[in-house]
Formats: sequence, C-alpha cells, structure tokens
Amino acid sequence: MGGAIEEDERELTPEIKMRFPISEGDVDREGEEIFVPPLNFAMVDSGVFRSGFPDTANFSFLQTLGLRSIIYLCPEPYPEPNTEFLKSNGIRLFQFGIEGCKEPWVNIPEDMIREALKVVLDSRNRPLLIHCKRGKHRTGCLVGCLRKLQRWCLSSIFNEYQRFAAAKARVSDQRFMELFDVSSSKNLPTSFSCSKR
Amino acid sequence: MGGAIEEDERELTPEIKMRFPISEGDVDREGEEIFVPPLNFAMVDSGVFRSGFPDTANFSFLQTLGLRSIIYLCPEPYPEPNTEFLKSNGIRLFQFGIEGCKEPWVNIPEDMIREALKVVLDSRNRPLLIHCKRGKHRTGCLVGCLRKLQRWCLSSIFNEYQRFAAAKARVSDQRFMELFDVSSSKNLPTSFSCSKR
Repeated sequence: MGGAIEEDERELTPEIKMRFPISEGDVDREGEEIFVPPLNFAMVDSGVFRSGFPDTANFSFLQTLGLRSIIYLCPEPYPEPNTEFLKSNGIRLFQFGIEGCKEPWVNIPEDMIREALKVVLDSRNRPLLIHCKRGKHRTGCLVGCLRKLQRWCLSSIFNEYQRFAAAKARVSDQRFMELFDVSSSKNLPTSFSCSKR
Repeated sequence: MGGAIEEDERELTPEIKMRFPISEGDVDREGEEIFVPPLNFAMVDSGVFRSGFPDTANFSFLQTLGLRSIIYLCPEPYPEPNTEFLKSNGIRLFQFGIEGCKEPWVNIPEDMIREALKVVLDSRNRPLLIHCKRGKHRTGCLVGCLRKLQRWCLSSIFNEYQRFAAAKARVSDQRFMELFDVSSSKNLPTSFSCSKR
C-alpha cells in the first residue's frame, strides 16, 4: 500500500493485477476485490454513514458509497492522501474542529453540532459520511442529536451511542444529547428512508 | 400499554389524546410522538434493517420504515400482537426457525441462512427488518453472511458482529461466517445503496 507500489500499479494490465494484486484494497483467492470499511463503519440512515478515520485501505470501499460529502469532526488538518481521495472523487469536505478532550474536560460545542446537522439535513450533501477519529464520541454525539430530530427516545439514542463507544462511553456526551434542544426544529423528516412504497 | 387501555384509546379525540397521551408509542412535553426503535435497531443497508424482538412499544416507529417484510429467525410462533401488526400494515413474514442454542451446542443451519439471504436479496421484499430475540447472534450471523456477499473483509464483519453481540460474542458464530462460502454467488450488488448520483 506504499506510494511506490501504487505508482507501479498503473502500469499493470488487469490480468496481471488479478494474479498479482497490488491495490489499495485487498483481494481474495479468486482475485476479487475485498472491501475494507473504515473502523466502526455503519449506516445511520439512507445516504448517511458514520465511521472512524478512513485510511487508504478504506478508499475503494468508500467509492462504492458514491459519497457527495464528508463531515469531519476534528480540528487537525485532513491528511494529504484523504484530501487527494476527495478531490479525485468530487467529494466535498465539511470540517468542524471539535476538540477530542477526555473527561472531565469534555466540551462538545453545541453551535458546531447544529451547523453539522444542517449539512446532514441538506439532501444535496447526501450520500455523506460523518467521521471523527474513532467514530465513538464526536460522531456519536452528532448522530445522537440527529436521532433527537428524528424523535427517537433517549434510551434508544443511548443504546446506539453505547454500541459504538462501548467501554469508552461518556456520561457527559449522553448528557449533551439529553440536553440538546430540538423544540425549534419541528418539521424535519423522521427518516431519510427511500421507501419502495 | 395494556390491552384495556388500547381499547379506550380509540374513543379519545386527537386533542384529548395529546393532553392525556395513551398510545403504543410515547410523547414528549409538547405532545409530539417520540419513537421507540426496537432493542439493537440499526440500518444494515438501504431498505435492510436489523433489531431484537419488536414489542408493541416499537410498532409506531416500525411504521415509519414502510416495511414490506420481516425476516424472523426464531422457531417460536410469532406473538399475536405482532401478527396483528403485520396484518394491518401489509407486511409479509418470513420465518426461519433457527434454535437459539448456547455454546458449545451452537449450530447455525447454513441452509436456513442461505434461504434467508435469498429473501434479503430480492428487492421486492425490501424494505425489510431482520430480527431474532436479542438482535445479536442469529441476526448477526445473517448480516455477517450478507457482508460476505458484499465482499467485506472478515475483520470488518467481526467488528460489526461484535458491536451488537458485545460481551455475548461467540467464536462459533464468527467461525460460521468465516467458513460461509460465497464463491458461487458472484454477481451480487456490493451495496443496495440508493445513491443520489
């Protein structure tokens, strides 16, 4: 997966690539591509995905999603290979620099979550991927606030949050979601589901 | 949520229902319905959902999904309220009676998983919900085999399985998914995603 090998790859014929697979993804014994979703990858709703930080091994999988945007919830600059991936696939980056503090210094900035939610709710930005570093806390809070807009009960929101955060679940994150006020946002869809009916 | 209260509910005007909410779902302080997704509910792919056993509290949420079918992976008969819910919403039930044995007596029947997969892959059956009792083992195995068809790498399949099974994760289930042969199923979609592109 190194840079030099990727250069070589462009020179190989499809037949040779199948026999000596050198790609960003991986292949099985029959030479078919095996996809590597990012850590903690999941579908949130139709056209909305979540995950931990994607690396080059995940790019061919991400291409299958036909993403239009990525919501990136960390303050650190986006790495060069990821920026290149976005460029070559016409994916727009929305960055919201939420610090990844540990308890008890956690402070999820509500204004940034509200701005990020606006991006999620704008159908022109979907399909989109929400990610932070591990796909647990910052991503979990944004998805939890989206669930509040979808009028999920708190226990189901926490059940979903904890599924990803597991042993790292934070009471402060859950309190943030509990207090997050959605009373001014009435007319939102309860689901983006592309029902066949 | 008892039977007698549900009978009464039909007599109440919408206005009174809002002030004295008695429904299968729940309402918030403004009288708006709050949805209660089933335990371990998640979206697997577009039009494919998974969960633990849905009870009456979950019915109004399930209605928002516009389900066409339910795949039920336990041998026990479907309870009367659930059967009624399916009838009144035109949802077809596909039951595959996989025993919920504990290790080391676990035996996931491959033929049933293959039959269930056929139901998932037939777009006429979607949107659909896959569920067993807890949404961990039987549901996890079926979803894991679907991921193999979607050519996910094993570590991502196990990452997803473990997210739901958590402390109850079974090596035998993971071994079943690892051994599940998809070499004869070549031309399947890697995603059901209803991409906006």
